[in-house]
Amino acid sequence: MKKDFLMIAGPMPLHPEVLASLSQPIISHRSKDFSEIFLQTVELAKKVFKTNNQIFILPCSGSGGLEAVISNLMSPGDKVLVCVNGFFGERFKSIMLAYSIKPIILEKGWGEPINTDDVISILKKDPEIKSVFIVHNESSTGVISNIKEISKEIKKLDSNILVIIDAVSSLGGTDIQTDEWSLDVVVAASQKALMAPPGLCLISISDTAWKRINSSKSPRWYFDLRLIKEEGSRGMTLVTPSIPIIIALRKALQILLEEGLDNVFNRNLLIRNMIIEAIELMDLKLLGNRRYASPTVTTVKLPPNINPEVLIDYIANEYSVIFAPGLGRIANETFRIGHMGYIFPNDVIVAISALEKSIKHFRNVTK
Amino acid sequence: MKKDFLMIAGPMPLHPEVLASLSQPIISHRSKDFSEIFLQTVELAKKVFKTNNQIFILPCSGSGGLEAVISNLMSPGDKVLVCVNGFFGERFKSIMLAYSIKPIILEKGWGEPINTDDVISILKKDPEIKSVFIVHNESSTGVISNIKEISKEIKKLDSNILVIIDAVSSLGGTDIQTDEWSLDVVVAASQKALMAPPGLCLISISDTAWKRINSSKSPRWYFDLRLIKEEGSRGMTLVTPSIPIIIALRKALQILLEEGLDNVFNRNLLIRNMIIEAIELMDLKLLGNRRYASPTVTTVKLPPNINPEVLIDYIANEYSVIFAPGLGRIANETFRIGHMGYIFPNDVIVAISALEKSIKHFRNVTK
Repeated sequence: MKKDFLMIAGPMPLHPEVLASLSQPIISHRSKDFSEIFLQTVELAKKVFKTNNQIFILPCSGSGGLEAVISNLMSPGDKVLVCVNGFFGERFKSIMLAYSIKPIILEKGWGEPINTDDVISILKKDPEIKSVFIVHNESSTGVISNIKEISKEIKKLDSNILVIIDAVSSLGGTDIQTDEWSLDVVVAASQKALMAPPGLCLISISDTAWKRINSSKSPRWYFDLRLIKEEGSRGMTLVTPSIPIIIALRKALQILLEEGLDNVFNRNLLIRNMIIEAIELMDLKLLGNRRYASPTVTTVKLPPNINPEVLIDYIANEYSVIFAPGLGRIANETFRIGHMGYIFPNDVIVAISALEKSIKHFRNVTK
Repeated sequence: MKKDFLMIAGPMPLHPEVLASLSQPIISHRSKDFSEIFLQTVELAKKVFKTNNQIFILPCSGSGGLEAVISNLMSPGDKVLVCVNGFFGERFKSIMLAYSIKPIILEKGWGEPINTDDVISILKKDPEIKSVFIVHNESSTGVISNIKEISKEIKKLDSNILVIIDAVSSLGGTDIQTDEWSLDVVVAASQKALMAPPGLCLISISDTAWKRINSSKSPRWYFDLRLIKEEGSRGMTLVTPSIPIIIALRKALQILLEEGLDNVFNRNLLIRNMIIEAIELMDLKLLGNRRYASPTVTTVKLPPNINPEVLIDYIANEYSVIFAPGLGRIANETFRIGHMGYIFPNDVIVAISALEKSIKHFRNVTK
């Protein structure tokens, strides 16, 4: 028997009612019962996205959703500005390259946010750019960018430029006002701050973005939003969906909305602040500037004499607290603490205690 | 409170232990525990596929798997023979067209099997054809084709022609000897005879098929088997997998193999025969010839005075037995009974009883 404290950057632990909801008998995905559940889930999601736009729930991971955005909205030759300040910006770029679309890259340091002036200056220089892609909350670096401000300035320049947001690790964990901030496309995933199991991706699409869909020349069927929309309009899915995961997502969204989104967001901020203060007391550093610290994931920079992989294995084995490894080019100097969804201050007490004892251990070992 | 008997052509009801396995706490998909579960699941799947080929477990539905086959193995201009004898043959064709690949079509009547001589005669006429796609078990028509014989003759003609099988509604429900029958690509899905929840697709790929993967010019990232293979070799997945569904699939495969595949196959045949005899006693007809009747799905043709949609709604409401509607061009004259996975003769007694009373009702009503 063991009892793990899962504090990775998703999937997150499940609320007991969400966990229990997974074990309902399977129903037909062509039944009225399922259709009702599916439509309810979409309506609940709209409240979290704060949108009246169409919302799609796709049977894939968050990265699958990013690919759906690319294959439905972009064609080779399109001018798309892709802002890269971490692993998931790089991933969007990789998927675009797989589709023979050559992005224009705004490259920032890993640990820095995306800056409004940088974006606007590129758009002013090249008025042919039709879309801007930004990761809202880079879960590799634990840095959040000011999407509200960036989007406002982009739309001021040209309201036809699509603002496309990877909100995989932020939606449900911090405020995103899709309509109010004129976000054309917002991609989220079930297993992060939405505190459902992995397996589903959620995408909101504005009318402006929808107009692009028919002109895309990229091949797609599984991710074809036109086909998915057609089925969705009668509460149906294009392919057999993962019924238990949809039922669990509905339950998770209900629980989030019952707590009240602002309460959830404040709880996440409180937890983030607890963690930041604790790690600073341990003489460890955040990777990024505290001003841009993510409300849902904290990326900690380790001194050169402590190996992140060894550290997180040690913490898992000794204290049953599971932290996430670093990603990409900063993997050998960072590790990550996920703090969203069904995570409360008491869980953080456990996590901090484990981290503190382990850091002490390694400092003594390497003295 | 209600208690439904789900007898659709997938998803199928879950064994209580599979259902319970869904409610295990979420673990990290980058942990050794998960890696072990994932590798075990692949090994169990190999026993059901009867193969030593590489097996991929993808986070998508069966149709997603068909798209993965197309995008990884085919390019525009390739000569691919696609055998169409029902809805799912049509679907493969639709996905190919979405990828600008123009298939050569062998069209058979809906209700007929794919015939070896037809396939071989086309291949002899056009030696440039590099791949043949066949739906093993057309779940729209309830007809199974003799893949063993077809594959043997194809390979006798040219061992480099890829034999690609949609086994979504047959794998785990009837014998498929991937290696013995030289099947290069076999696509299955979790929610059919494998009796797990929906959400995962399983694909086996032969070495001969693998050689094609680098030359495909179709774009893909989420479904890129090269990236997935790289991660899979260390028990990892390219993207966050649906952890509960993988745990449930492992449990379902364990239960299937414990019963013994031959026992499962025989149980399905017994059930199929019970159903066929019952419907013939009711003066109803199979859509296809009994000789090619699927061991996992029975498609029943209704007399013109009984509307299938009205009938299955009535049976669901009056008797809590859920049958599947017909698909595609035969939707207005057929309905379907799924009988695979965790379905036993006693369930069929209930289903037959409900069907018999309902057919009697509609015959009296329309007299």
